[in-house]
Amino acid sequence: MTPVAAYDALTARFKRMNLVRDAIAMLDWDSAAMMPDGGSSARAEQIAALKVLAHEQACDPVLADLFAAARGDGPWQEANLREMRRDWAHATALPADLVEARSKAVSECEMRWRTARKANDFKGLLPALRRVLDLTKEVAAIKAAKLGLSRYDALLDEYEPGGSSAEIDPVFDDLAAFLPAFTDAALERQAKRPAPLPLEGPFPAEAQKALAHDLMAGVGFDFAHGRLDTSHHPFCGGVPDDVRLTTRWDENDFAKGLMGVLHETGHAMYERGLPPEWRNQPVGFARGMSAHESQSLLVEMQACRSDAFLRFLAPKAAAAFGKSGPAWTAENFATVYRRVHRGLIRVDADEVTYPAHVILRYRLERALIEDRMDLSDLPGAWNDGMKALVGVVPPDDRDGCLQDIHWPGGAWGYFPTYTLGAMTAAQLFAAAKAAVPGIEPGLAKGDFAPLMGWLRANWHALGSSMTTREMLIRATGKPLDPAVFKAHLTARYLAG
Amino acid sequence: MTPVAAYDALTARFKRMNLVRDAIAMLDWDSAAMMPDGGSSARAEQIAALKVLAHEQACDPVLADLFAAARGDGPWQEANLREMRRDWAHATALPADLVEARSKAVSECEMRWRTARKANDFKGLLPALRRVLDLTKEVAAIKAAKLGLSRYDALLDEYEPGGSSAEIDPVFDDLAAFLPAFTDAALERQAKRPAPLPLEGPFPAEAQKALAHDLMAGVGFDFAHGRLDTSHHPFCGGVPDDVRLTTRWDENDFAKGLMGVLHETGHAMYERGLPPEWRNQPVGFARGMSAHESQSLLVEMQACRSDAFLRFLAPKAAAAFGKSGPAWTAENFATVYRRVHRGLIRVDADEVTYPAHVILRYRLERALIEDRMDLSDLPGAWNDGMKALVGVVPPDDRDGCLQDIHWPGGAWGYFPTYTLGAMTAAQLFAAAKAAVPGIEPGLAKGDFAPLMGWLRANWHALGSSMTTREMLIRATGKPLDPAVFKAHLTARYLAG
Repeated sequence: MTPVAAYDALTARFKRMNLVRDAIAMLDWDSAAMMPDGGSSARAEQIAALKVLAHEQACDPVLADLFAAARGDGPWQEANLREMRRDWAHATALPADLVEARSKAVSECEMRWRTARKANDFKGLLPALRRVLDLTKEVAAIKAAKLGLSRYDALLDEYEPGGSSAEIDPVFDDLAAFLPAFTDAALERQAKRPAPLPLEGPFPAEAQKALAHDLMAGVGFDFAHGRLDTSHHPFCGGVPDDVRLTTRWDENDFAKGLMGVLHETGHAMYERGLPPEWRNQPVGFARGMSAHESQSLLVEMQACRSDAFLRFLAPKAAAAFGKSGPAWTAENFATVYRRVHRGLIRVDADEVTYPAHVILRYRLERALIEDRMDLSDLPGAWNDGMKALVGVVPPDDRDGCLQDIHWPGGAWGYFPTYTLGAMTAAQLFAAAKAAVPGIEPGLAKGDFAPLMGWLRANWHALGSSMTTREMLIRATGKPLDPAVFKAHLTARYLAG
Repeated sequence: MTPVAAYDALTARFKRMNLVRDAIAMLDWDSAAMMPDGGSSARAEQIAALKVLAHEQACDPVLADLFAAARGDGPWQEANLREMRRDWAHATALPADLVEARSKAVSECEMRWRTARKANDFKGLLPALRRVLDLTKEVAAIKAAKLGLSRYDALLDEYEPGGSSAEIDPVFDDLAAFLPAFTDAALERQAKRPAPLPLEGPFPAEAQKALAHDLMAGVGFDFAHGRLDTSHHPFCGGVPDDVRLTTRWDENDFAKGLMGVLHETGHAMYERGLPPEWRNQPVGFARGMSAHESQSLLVEMQACRSDAFLRFLAPKAAAAFGKSGPAWTAENFATVYRRVHRGLIRVDADEVTYPAHVILRYRLERALIEDRMDLSDLPGAWNDGMKALVGVVPPDDRDGCLQDIHWPGGAWGYFPTYTLGAMTAAQLFAAAKAAVPGIEPGLAKGDFAPLMGWLRANWHALGSSMTTREMLIRATGKPLDPAVFKAHLTARYLAG
């Protein structure tokens, strides 16, 4: 077989496998947004059957011969081959019995976690969580050998291709040294300023939805290629040509939900902006979790919490809900949307303290994977870390080390991508504003076109043709630089 | 391999294949009810990929060995094996190039039909339709040889397993001899009675939806296992444990749409009532198109147009829309819902003339498949048949032989199932009422439980464990008997 024919055969096989994965993505969206409760068993069987089929395609022995023979023509085909190999390596690295054992252990542990968290019972969760950790370490060891990476990096690679703790450590250490004193300073300044005036509802779901649709359209969301529906946990699902966003409407508080929709819209814009000529090919996919989170946080944190956008948003929201008065000014929106507090819960954390929550988890999960800590010591280490990094100590494990589903759910190596994404967002936004003078005037009118034009060319359209690090250097002239994120925080929380 | 092991291996394979088909069913529903327009290309590729996978599973050469070795234990397993073989025979009968050529010809012909119908241009459609017919005849010849059936019956078997023109002919001939004079008589009687009073809207979609939900619940639809949404063409989709119904809301006319919802609810009740212990096995599926249509028409035509139900419905609908007056009485609803007229269009036809439309199509498609007529003679034969059976002659082909998408769409052998279903509905309803005295009192309160209890035991729960004919004999004591349908029409349209 010629190198070209082998490459073409691989693209046909990966296209087909990825179409099955797309079908799974649509069914997952339906499960969350549409499916009646009684459909869940049938749905689980459908999805399991499709996953087996996709996995069997990945394990077809003929792929080895095709990879041996194939050669890509030009950088995109070469990158596509590289990404196919990465996908293949992850998909075929593990023996079937380990995959099954881990999948069962995760289901069991997630179930126990729901009750253990409510009951504040870390000891009760420990055996199930230890089982998940042990099997995850097995996975890590096998993938580490196969990919030539450390155990932690082998786990990280699934979410953050090409990422490494060697790159993350100095960045996170830098932030960890900065955040405690910065948080003190931000809180001190905040205390001297007016407290937020409450935005008083109720806010009818229909009015929230109309406002959200309007703002999404301003960001550039194309409703001919996507929808917004409701689900218990908001997410961005579907496929690039048919993006399915979900949210929840809280009729007493529109502010949080609205930023949630804008966050998901940032994810959606990335998916829609991926190179259409590489649909269903690995090189056409979003680059990884931090690259993805950078886009949602760029929209939510950088653009939508900017002074320019809040000047547009405050009167817009007031009109949408028929409100007026001093609470409905850009100044008050800024105090609402930039409130810093030392909280226990990561998902409720603000922009300043969120990275501290993440750095804690990153350090702990690495220590656990690398056998530098025993799982039974987690609660104490958690509380020590919270005290040092956030400045509060959880009164119990419920609001401490039991709060996240990630570890019981088997997602080890995932946490750092949140903060890598936040830092990448700050760096991209600074570069975009420097390159395109129209961005801030656009935001002041709710028009994201100038920003999205730059992002499309400098981020979205690159797919997986290079590493996240290379993309960032290409777009901003340098790799991830904590100074940019720190400058952003300083400007927003200490200046003026 | 032991006969038991071979049987078990077959059930595992068919389960998996049918789970893929279930996934396709959910994606089809989404395409019609949820998907934004821009998602259509991606969706077409997803569905095509899943269809190829299901087909490959059906064509796995190991199936022949398993079928040779397998034996079923007891009547349900034996029936399951028989249905697996039927599925396998249909799925593997045709060479891939014929399937592809026919699929392309159908796509082309459907596209041309849309413009040809608008332009009243039968000649313009003729070459594309001839191509579809020729390829369909090829399919029929191959399946006829494989299944040991006539060419027409081989096509019919896909929709109506075990059905045959030898059984249909005498039944349809009987009806064809009855209908013209009966239609004259029904119209004569109708002319002597008060015309329907108009039900004046508007009828807000939300109010229609609330009424529909209420009535569906009365029929027994379980919203924990299904939904009602909107789509351009109403249908019953999804899977037995998660039935997805769709409808359209016409704010000027609720009457037609409401009966449409009740029709689809009849389909849904059949799917939900299939034997749960045989999910995803061929013996657990609905028996065929006439068996399915019998359930929708039993609900819509037999139960919901009965005097008992209309007495319940009229005040219910009046309350739902805040109406009152002489138009909102059971008597007026009966004139609205039982109006007979000699129309040109099948989908708009009433209960009396609908069978005449179907018999015409059945006779013509048989003549075409059996080479007893040339396609160029279709318009003349159509008009002659309309004159003889319905008593009107289409002024043009647009409202004549160009009105249905079935033939351009490749659905040959489908038409008779509509009227077989209508007759089966009448026969089942008569038997049910004779067996269960509570059925009519139930309908008078909008409560279908007594009727559904009988249908579940005597129809739904049988799955595909026997032929439609055997089911009907088991449930009513005799095979399909046109006298019952004629008696129903006579009682409803001539008596009193």
